[in-house]
Amino acid sequence: MLSRMDANWPRVVVIGGGFGGLSATRHLARAPVRIMLVDAHNHHLFQPLLYQVATAALPPTAIASPLRRILRGQANAEVLMARVVAIDLAARRVTFEQGDLSYDRLILAAGSTDSYFGHDDWAAAAPGLKSLGQALEIRNRVLRAFEAAEREEDQARREAWMTFVVVGGGPTGVELAGALSEIARSTLDRDFRRIQPAEARVVLAEAGSRILGSFDPKLSAQAVRDLMRLGVELLADSKVTRMDSEGVTLQIGDREQRLASRTVIWAAGVKASPLGASLGVPLDRSGRVLVQPDLSLAGHPEVQVIGDLASLVVDGKPVPGLAPAAIQEGILAARNVRRALKGQSAEPFHYWDKGTLATIGRGRAVAQIGPLRLSGFVAWLTWVFVHILYLVGFRNRYFVLTEWAFAYFMHDRGARLIAEAGNDELDGAEGPRRTPDQS
Amino acid sequence: MLSRMDANWPRVVVIGGGFGGLSATRHLARAPVRIMLVDAHNHHLFQPLLYQVATAALPPTAIASPLRRILRGQANAEVLMARVVAIDLAARRVTFEQGDLSYDRLILAAGSTDSYFGHDDWAAAAPGLKSLGQALEIRNRVLRAFEAAEREEDQARREAWMTFVVVGGGPTGVELAGALSEIARSTLDRDFRRIQPAEARVVLAEAGSRILGSFDPKLSAQAVRDLMRLGVELLADSKVTRMDSEGVTLQIGDREQRLASRTVIWAAGVKASPLGASLGVPLDRSGRVLVQPDLSLAGHPEVQVIGDLASLVVDGKPVPGLAPAAIQEGILAARNVRRALKGQSAEPFHYWDKGTLATIGRGRAVAQIGPLRLSGFVAWLTWVFVHILYLVGFRNRYFVLTEWAFAYFMHDRGARLIAEAGNDELDGAEGPRRTPDQS
Repeated sequence: MLSRMDANWPRVVVIGGGFGGLSATRHLARAPVRIMLVDAHNHHLFQPLLYQVATAALPPTAIASPLRRILRGQANAEVLMARVVAIDLAARRVTFEQGDLSYDRLILAAGSTDSYFGHDDWAAAAPGLKSLGQALEIRNRVLRAFEAAEREEDQARREAWMTFVVVGGGPTGVELAGALSEIARSTLDRDFRRIQPAEARVVLAEAGSRILGSFDPKLSAQAVRDLMRLGVELLADSKVTRMDSEGVTLQIGDREQRLASRTVIWAAGVKASPLGASLGVPLDRSGRVLVQPDLSLAGHPEVQVIGDLASLVVDGKPVPGLAPAAIQEGILAARNVRRALKGQSAEPFHYWDKGTLATIGRGRAVAQIGPLRLSGFVAWLTWVFVHILYLVGFRNRYFVLTEWAFAYFMHDRGARLIAEAGNDELDGAEGPRRTPDQS
Repeated sequence: MLSRMDANWPRVVVIGGGFGGLSATRHLARAPVRIMLVDAHNHHLFQPLLYQVATAALPPTAIASPLRRILRGQANAEVLMARVVAIDLAARRVTFEQGDLSYDRLILAAGSTDSYFGHDDWAAAAPGLKSLGQALEIRNRVLRAFEAAEREEDQARREAWMTFVVVGGGPTGVELAGALSEIARSTLDRDFRRIQPAEARVVLAEAGSRILGSFDPKLSAQAVRDLMRLGVELLADSKVTRMDSEGVTLQIGDREQRLASRTVIWAAGVKASPLGASLGVPLDRSGRVLVQPDLSLAGHPEVQVIGDLASLVVDGKPVPGLAPAAIQEGILAARNVRRALKGQSAEPFHYWDKGTLATIGRGRAVAQIGPLRLSGFVAWLTWVFVHILYLVGFRNRYFVLTEWAFAYFMHDRGARLIAEAGNDELDGAEGPRRTPDQS
């Protein structure tokens, strides 16, 4: 493999193996460069389907692929599983927890993370949904909540276990709330004897005046109808003011309302990776790096920032934090690296808006593609098609289709396991140790 | 559902949802009893295939099924996810961390756990393989070891990351060592650029004079040949005397040998669940409960102990700690409950020895079924057939077959993800947090 890579080729370091970083890496496959793709995780994650892992519809293997397997055949790319701690733009060097690496070109695609708007202490009570680990954590919490409700004798406490609050009415929040309501109403419905899972309350709290605020108001309204049909309670103009392990307090207009809930999920906002701020360059108010039209850093043409970490206005509109935008930016970043090698000037980024989609439970979705506005089953089929198409690698596509077909026709979810990596058998399968519902 | 269950029916509490407890529960489906199946986990686990999860060949969903789904259609059975802390035989009461439960009949099937022979401090360095959590922990450690080796510049330290020690040469140890050697030699072989995964050392250390000691010596010898062909290093008469996160020290005959290894797995022994000892009844030297021929406790005909926790000699031979034995005991326990309800006396247990099997990598196994001794591909096909047959529920059978077919023909393992449940995105996908190889 190494024989096909020349030690004199320029070193390109790509930070982040998400849609942007992976797309840049793959589009440099035939360029005379040595690529090092660095990620803290060992896998590329298909984030748009993460909520399906969190609601036990898909197993992790269906939406994640090891980066090494994806890049196995690309001779000029190496993968390094490491966490970046600093970037020295002047010295052109990236520092990890172990060691460092010099670069000739840097493609920074470190993405975004949950934003609690200054309330980072809420993170323990309400995990977000950005990583596989968080999705598994949410899945464990949801399944444990039903188990705890089944054990609980006190009615008020039982109701707190059976109340699920999703904070944030964007696509992630809407998809999560719909899927949670479905798992309670169809999958788990016959599993319990003392509680009726179908009586679970799923509350979707949105701080703004309507859900799916980035969609056409008509599609928002359709999503509201679809969610209500699924039994989701919608609260608009509802801002979280307090949160702890027993529930949330919402400011709804002038009044405060306390919701007793043992399971709160945060889908209210993201902020850019802190690596952006560490560069010492101008940022937008979300902490994203303001880039030149060609995605480079002002004064540092050898550095390009792409994906959720980049802030750019094209044709008067900000480029959204969506997978297609990150993929397109990755392609241009790769192209500009190749052009620089040939002594050509960098090209500016043009965004091709492929539209946005959100599902609302089984068989329904809303889609906004150019002038097209779709809802219902047609939108859902579009959603299935687009997501299968984008899934990296044949194997995942095949397994996701199989799992979905199974779940669709059998009303069953196979991934309903509560499991945490760890040496949990130290004290025996039974015997005093810890409460099963601690989380 | 509850309408089909009479509140006056006797209460049967079954502790443990493994092969024994589940078999007893299902065979009481038509009896006029109210069953409460209690388990600390929410799933039944197909333990014979756990090593395939630990070596990334199968995802957890393939070998585990939620207990509630398995028992969904059994109207007289409830499931309680709880950890048992005490059993009061005189008061006929089981105490959990939350609340307690009285019983008329008790079926105790709490199983076994890892035994470190008095060195419980070794557990952190060398997890065993009894639960899904442990299997995921081992999978994470193995995959992280290769990642750390790829990063490591120092040769001695790199070799320690690429040395895997399996302690214990029983079926679990043999299957694990074979599968580990295979994942290094075929699946991961093209994934890395700096290390050669095929150069990984897999060492199987057995304290006795031969591996698979419970099998015919000829089959042991065949297993040795098969393992060596896979590149596994075998050490017989090798007893662990010291262990820490840097490696193990073995006593081999008269001399001591230190093996630098960052990944050690414990498959050397099991002991009975501590619930057995808490009863205050006679135990054998492995801590298992000595039961009457009808599986009941002396002086407590209303209590039956089955599976790995029971110690019983039938026809001059101890009943082994295998899934078929636990299943057969579960069936008899259920039968004796039904007989007691009709005023009939309990029947003694007869063990039908269905033989033992162990695989050694892809396409090879050894099998001992009655007078039959099989090895090679025929034994492996037998193994596949038997395991698919026993898997609980059509869905799992179907998925395991698909996964296996895929892995067999594609030499690929889909479950190669490093993921831990937890809110791991608190500090962003990148940015200072923790070393990725901590474990």
